[in-house]
Amino acid sequence: MTASTATDTATAVLRRCREIVTPGLRAAVARLDPASREQASYHLGWTELDGSPGNGGGKAVRPALALLSAEAAGATAAAGLPGAVAVELVHNFSLLHDDLMDGDTERRHRRTVWAQWGAPSAILTGDALLALAVEVLLEAESPHAARAAWLVTGTTRELIRGQAEDIAFERRTDVAVDECLAMAAGKTGALLAVSAEVGAVLAGADAALTAALRTYGAELGAAFQLVDDLLGIWGDPAVTGKPVLSDLRSRKKSLPVTYAVHHGGTAGRDLARWLTGTGTDTEPELRRAAALVESGGGRDWAAAEARRRMSLAEKALAGVELPDVTRAELVALGRHLTDREF
Amino acid sequence: MTASTATDTATAVLRRCREIVTPGLRAAVARLDPASREQASYHLGWTELDGSPGNGGGKAVRPALALLSAEAAGATAAAGLPGAVAVELVHNFSLLHDDLMDGDTERRHRRTVWAQWGAPSAILTGDALLALAVEVLLEAESPHAARAAWLVTGTTRELIRGQAEDIAFERRTDVAVDECLAMAAGKTGALLAVSAEVGAVLAGADAALTAALRTYGAELGAAFQLVDDLLGIWGDPAVTGKPVLSDLRSRKKSLPVTYAVHHGGTAGRDLARWLTGTGTDTEPELRRAAALVESGGGRDWAAAEARRRMSLAEKALAGVELPDVTRAELVALGRHLTDREF
Repeated sequence: MTASTATDTATAVLRRCREIVTPGLRAAVARLDPASREQASYHLGWTELDGSPGNGGGKAVRPALALLSAEAAGATAAAGLPGAVAVELVHNFSLLHDDLMDGDTERRHRRTVWAQWGAPSAILTGDALLALAVEVLLEAESPHAARAAWLVTGTTRELIRGQAEDIAFERRTDVAVDECLAMAAGKTGALLAVSAEVGAVLAGADAALTAALRTYGAELGAAFQLVDDLLGIWGDPAVTGKPVLSDLRSRKKSLPVTYAVHHGGTAGRDLARWLTGTGTDTEPELRRAAALVESGGGRDWAAAEARRRMSLAEKALAGVELPDVTRAELVALGRHLTDREF
Repeated sequence: MTASTATDTATAVLRRCREIVTPGLRAAVARLDPASREQASYHLGWTELDGSPGNGGGKAVRPALALLSAEAAGATAAAGLPGAVAVELVHNFSLLHDDLMDGDTERRHRRTVWAQWGAPSAILTGDALLALAVEVLLEAESPHAARAAWLVTGTTRELIRGQAEDIAFERRTDVAVDECLAMAAGKTGALLAVSAEVGAVLAGADAALTAALRTYGAELGAAFQLVDDLLGIWGDPAVTGKPVLSDLRSRKKSLPVTYAVHHGGTAGRDLARWLTGTGTDTEPELRRAAALVESGGGRDWAAAEARRRMSLAEKALAGVELPDVTRAELVALGRHLTDREF
């Protein structure tokens, strides 16, 4: 499969899945109390602050995985719908709380909920989305709904662990690469893993298939985080929507940075000094730091590790029976999400 | 039943139930990520900031209701244990988030989690307790575990609605008594209602019994809030642990205040002016405001309404079959919680 074929397939899959999940997501959000509903609708991109219609939400990658996972089990996408709605609600619960914790006033060039309505609103609306996610899943017409809900709540705690570690790492100077990978497995991998599994669980798939799908999602999550960290340094601001060299500007101990610090010899030691120093954020200085990450091997390692993780993801799928079309769609979606330019 | 008999029975019930629920609660909290575990253990009163053992937690009213509700259905208290653990976790999730939203730096003369560890910690630990509550309930060895979990997540959204309204009311001057009661039904009543029902649900009780227990918990919740609001004005600081006249100091639109404003004639109008004014918080001025609530009928109404709600609670129990000893314990517990001095 060429990169452009993967993109075409992935784009079509994402569009199809978004059409299936959006009515379910809207029906779920309509059940919220008025304040949470208003803020969630804005956050999801359905309405603007003046009440006019929004430009729609994000790519909805997690719902797409959930729907494909039902199809992987030989069921219809509809069988995975409560799972798709639930993982998107959990994802947005975490975004609402993370934006507040990180003090981010903008997301995708729009004001964040806490910046607009205040911290209590972001806390309460996030809480409501988490509770609603479980409710929706427990209402699924599947004898496996309770197991799916249990997986999602366990995943939520993994996500929380990852975010707590991420915050703790900001105050530490000795974070190892393995710790960083474990943090990303919680913060990014856990929800992608359960997304890739939940539809199959609802459809009553056997343990071999759900385990393979879970591994696919977890490895995709690791690859995605590595690529995201590369884009945080070398990404084109026009594509990422973030300032140039943004993760260096914030002195983020991302995966390529952490690798270079520990395994980059002289360049790594220079980088470590720069990270704890009080240098200015001029572009030449940030470019010099990026060069240290690169000469310390961080860029090459992260790119190779992302490829290795994606091949583990695809290998997991190769070991189980699933419809050819679904396998191709999962592979295309994974490649599309991790073959970004950096 | 005399007041002192009710107190003796209630004290014994609370002690017995605390002994049953504490090991389950400790086992649940032990599953949390290290940061959440440390903060939850402190918040629950099990450890102090220096790592020494704490003086134990609160009364654990909600777990007691959950265990009694299993017994009401003819099962053992143990059948209600996952429900008891879950409602206590949800209660503490809401306390962690509420303390942050309300900016309270102390709870029961101890620093609050957000004041000690920062806002992100209180948010994440609260989130983790909510997710864990559902997990524990879904692991219950009952064919009705999923229904119990669904009830608890719906209740959580009611609780969130109540808290959101409470915050919104602070900025309004026209809050009606009915709105105030509806807010309290969410913020206080919903979790007591599900606590009184969840054990019976897990034990497979019929709809008539679970509905009666739910009504008992909801009415107890209303009575409890009315009494709490009375204590917030006329309570003895040595008993309540709050400053004298504390709810007037904070200009809280509590139930007796709201009643007096709307139905208290001249006194009510004077009170409304005082609430929106910029007066000082001297004790004579606060005492004058308390006198306006009283002459406006707020104190008598709240006391009578609390009694009426408790009699509705007891009436709900009178209409269904349950073991005599459990009925007596539920009645005694309710009276103990609402027969406080004010």
